[in-house]
Amino acid sequence: MKKLYGVGTGPGDKELLTLKAVKVIEGAKVIFAPNNKGKNMALDTVKDYIHNKKVVLLDFPMGEVKMDDYTKAAKIIYKEISDEEYGVFLTIGDPMIYSTFIYIMEELEKTDVEVEIVSGIPSFIAGAAKSKTPITIKKDRFLLCDEFQEEMLDNVDSICILKTLKDKEDILDSFEKKNFIYKYIKRCTLEDEKVLMDRKAIVEDKDYISLIIGRRKKDD
Amino acid sequence: MKKLYGVGTGPGDKELLTLKAVKVIEGAKVIFAPNNKGKNMALDTVKDYIHNKKVVLLDFPMGEVKMDDYTKAAKIIYKEISDEEYGVFLTIGDPMIYSTFIYIMEELEKTDVEVEIVSGIPSFIAGAAKSKTPITIKKDRFLLCDEFQEEMLDNVDSICILKTLKDKEDILDSFEKKNFIYKYIKRCTLEDEKVLMDRKAIVEDKDYISLIIGRRKKDD
Repeated sequence: MKKLYGVGTGPGDKELLTLKAVKVIEGAKVIFAPNNKGKNMALDTVKDYIHNKKVVLLDFPMGEVKMDDYTKAAKIIYKEISDEEYGVFLTIGDPMIYSTFIYIMEELEKTDVEVEIVSGIPSFIAGAAKSKTPITIKKDRFLLCDEFQEEMLDNVDSICILKTLKDKEDILDSFEKKNFIYKYIKRCTLEDEKVLMDRKAIVEDKDYISLIIGRRKKDD
Repeated sequence: MKKLYGVGTGPGDKELLTLKAVKVIEGAKVIFAPNNKGKNMALDTVKDYIHNKKVVLLDFPMGEVKMDDYTKAAKIIYKEISDEEYGVFLTIGDPMIYSTFIYIMEELEKTDVEVEIVSGIPSFIAGAAKSKTPITIKKDRFLLCDEFQEEMLDNVDSICILKTLKDKEDILDSFEKKNFIYKYIKRCTLEDEKVLMDRKAIVEDKDYISLIIGRRKKDD
């Protein structure tokens, strides 16, 4: 039987890897990661544990990825893992959150490859830690999304919006109108990390590795 | 300056500790944890790294905890950490999600104790991994809560409800009505872990360390 571990490498800080992630990477015969052309954050995070293992970069086209691209990648993975051995597919953050791995997993479920997931620290969890913003206290509701609409704020106590390059002004307008505090976390746990709370600074920032956390102001 | 690390110990599996959690626990002068009477999952998870350190269990009354209880706990923490040293406050899962630590942090912000948070794997992330349930793919919305109302399902693609001892039948009724698949994860990553998908088995289970993940069925 072949096996593939989907391993979350967390937000980027090497120290936020789990012990299990390190263990399964060190024991793997082959490492898979999406080919990002240029910088590869997942690979960079775990590079101390790769040693001289085979690394296979899987191509996914920029923009719209088609089901066929995932099928092709799954076929490569199937071929590269020998029987009774295992490989690791690296994914930034956690494998179950906005990841390519989800599609790969669904493709591999049609084969005899066993799949196991090793959770990673999602970026919004790391962002809450860095900005010291509670995500939930008792009875609270938290929403995670990658596209924002103002109505989302009506029934939640906190929210995290990922990939906030566009529409930042609209998002901040809504937060202000609906009485939410907000914090913008840029390059969370990475070298140039910044937590911004100033509206102008947030709007002007152009880093694509960024997220916004909003939290409803509570009456004292 | 005194310093307190709020450290998430994750869902219970020792291997899901982060490297940073291990490092700061090993370097701490004193370890704090809520006094659960009986089993203490946070302490159990990290016991290999406590060695002969001082462990201070903080009392929080069962049921309704008052602000005064957090103030008292924060005073004990302040007293126990010597100047220029640091302590660690352990919290299961992640410190920013439904934790006692949030209140402790807010109390300590009134003092000169520096606070730093070390993220942990939240139970719902581990539950998604164990049950291989995607939390979000592109454009999805995910809601986290500890009290359920059917209307919550109308505008989300997936949901996790923590502490599901009560109202399980109502929750499953709503999932079925709104076309959500559901998985119940009991004692996630612990010794007697189970993933249940059978309605009857879910309703009959009485374990309080459990959560339900629901996900909207997608049209093929």
